[in-house]
Amino acid sequence: MTCDLPIGVFDSGVGGLTVLRALRRRLPAESLVYLGDTARVPYGTKSVASIVRYAMQAADHLVARGIKMLVVACNTASAVSLEPLRERFAPLPVVGVVEPGADAAASVSRSRHMLVLATESTVRRHAYARAIAARAPGARIDEVACSLFVALAEEGWTTGEIPAAVARTYLDPYLRTNGSSKPDTIVLGCTHFPLLEDAIREAAGPDVTLVDSATTTAEAVATKLTELDLLTSATGEGTVTLLATDGADRFAAVGSRFLGMPIAPDEVEIVDL
Amino acid sequence: MTCDLPIGVFDSGVGGLTVLRALRRRLPAESLVYLGDTARVPYGTKSVASIVRYAMQAADHLVARGIKMLVVACNTASAVSLEPLRERFAPLPVVGVVEPGADAAASVSRSRHMLVLATESTVRRHAYARAIAARAPGARIDEVACSLFVALAEEGWTTGEIPAAVARTYLDPYLRTNGSSKPDTIVLGCTHFPLLEDAIREAAGPDVTLVDSATTTAEAVATKLTELDLLTSATGEGTVTLLATDGADRFAAVGSRFLGMPIAPDEVEIVDL
Repeated sequence: MTCDLPIGVFDSGVGGLTVLRALRRRLPAESLVYLGDTARVPYGTKSVASIVRYAMQAADHLVARGIKMLVVACNTASAVSLEPLRERFAPLPVVGVVEPGADAAASVSRSRHMLVLATESTVRRHAYARAIAARAPGARIDEVACSLFVALAEEGWTTGEIPAAVARTYLDPYLRTNGSSKPDTIVLGCTHFPLLEDAIREAAGPDVTLVDSATTTAEAVATKLTELDLLTSATGEGTVTLLATDGADRFAAVGSRFLGMPIAPDEVEIVDL
Repeated sequence: MTCDLPIGVFDSGVGGLTVLRALRRRLPAESLVYLGDTARVPYGTKSVASIVRYAMQAADHLVARGIKMLVVACNTASAVSLEPLRERFAPLPVVGVVEPGADAAASVSRSRHMLVLATESTVRRHAYARAIAARAPGARIDEVACSLFVALAEEGWTTGEIPAAVARTYLDPYLRTNGSSKPDTIVLGCTHFPLLEDAIREAAGPDVTLVDSATTTAEAVATKLTELDLLTSATGEGTVTLLATDGADRFAAVGSRFLGMPIAPDEVEIVDL
């Protein structure tokens, strides 16, 4: 039965494992198959044509294994490949990470002034700014590229003075302004950033709401599966299958922190796209 | 005349511009043509076969333009592609960044205990450890992957408390040991790291000598050109030509800091390899 197939989750690397973690929490009975294209990470510096081609190859692989839904757990790929994926694999439901984050931000912001933290390429494409503006016309949306957060998350330096100082350096120009309007909502617009949530929350202060696109994406997946009557009929805990295109050892070491549970290198299957 | 051709310098991205800067200082009359493969950076995560193929393509392009020497200003490419490049393009002299750094470290270290700071992939391949061991048999060589240094250099955060704290975090376990042997020489084994030299020197303390592979490579190039009687006959300042495979704007913005002089986006020619 279709509803007992796993959900396919695709990312350019290990970052999307924060989405996998959120999915496991929200939908523990669902089985999940994750594909990280670690041989070609990062996608942010690639052309749109290449990113779409890579996303198609990843989706081909997951669809051939059998999935009931595709989650594009990569901001770069979500920004450019959702429509081509939906066309090619219809009626397979395809969920990205940008739209659920934008939905949540537009609905929680009271002041209609938001701050998006993302990678350089997501900021350059204004992926969140466009998606939020479509949902909250006239809202003010600041965007800041936080490249160091990616490096800190991958290095595992997520607590202590260094991430705190880095978060203050990025956020202070937007939050410690004199008199003028301040954002009341911060969007974590990169799948790496939930690992830095404590440091970001500390730098942001108590009056600011954090929107985590991993959690909001898991919620959107749950809603979509319910609507389409595709929730699994299985009880008990779903299985997790991990695939990568290169580097099982690094995927296991770095990925464990993102997934929030240990991964052994021999649990990671290397595939060719 | 061959001696009046430019020196070709090749890197996976902008990091090699620190080598270009060192070459301009050491050999101001020489003309230089730099090619950064920004479309495919980073090389560290790629397979050896891919890295060799990319290096060959870059060298083909530079050789077709006319060069008298090829400098591989990329640690990853230096570690795996020097021999194939030398074979294919003989008698063109090919200089990498690993050997000059290893030569210098082996000759300056008194205690025969050295510390190599590099990227994750250079450490994993033990490129410097092998090269130094061949020159200083029996020496103790510690290696530490300093991924955050790359992100700090690209972000332009090279002074102040954050780079200082990051440098201490990486170095202290090797330098603040109780009683046991400590390295007296630190090799900056990544072309990004000269930008963090002040922070690294501060964390290392006054008793440690820093070996900068950009400066040592420029010295090796000068020696080789002299030996081969290939020094330019031109007087005055040589020209600098900048080529990249993608992203002229980012190359100009980030590259200016690495080269130590302003680069305008329209000075960067985009080429296809």
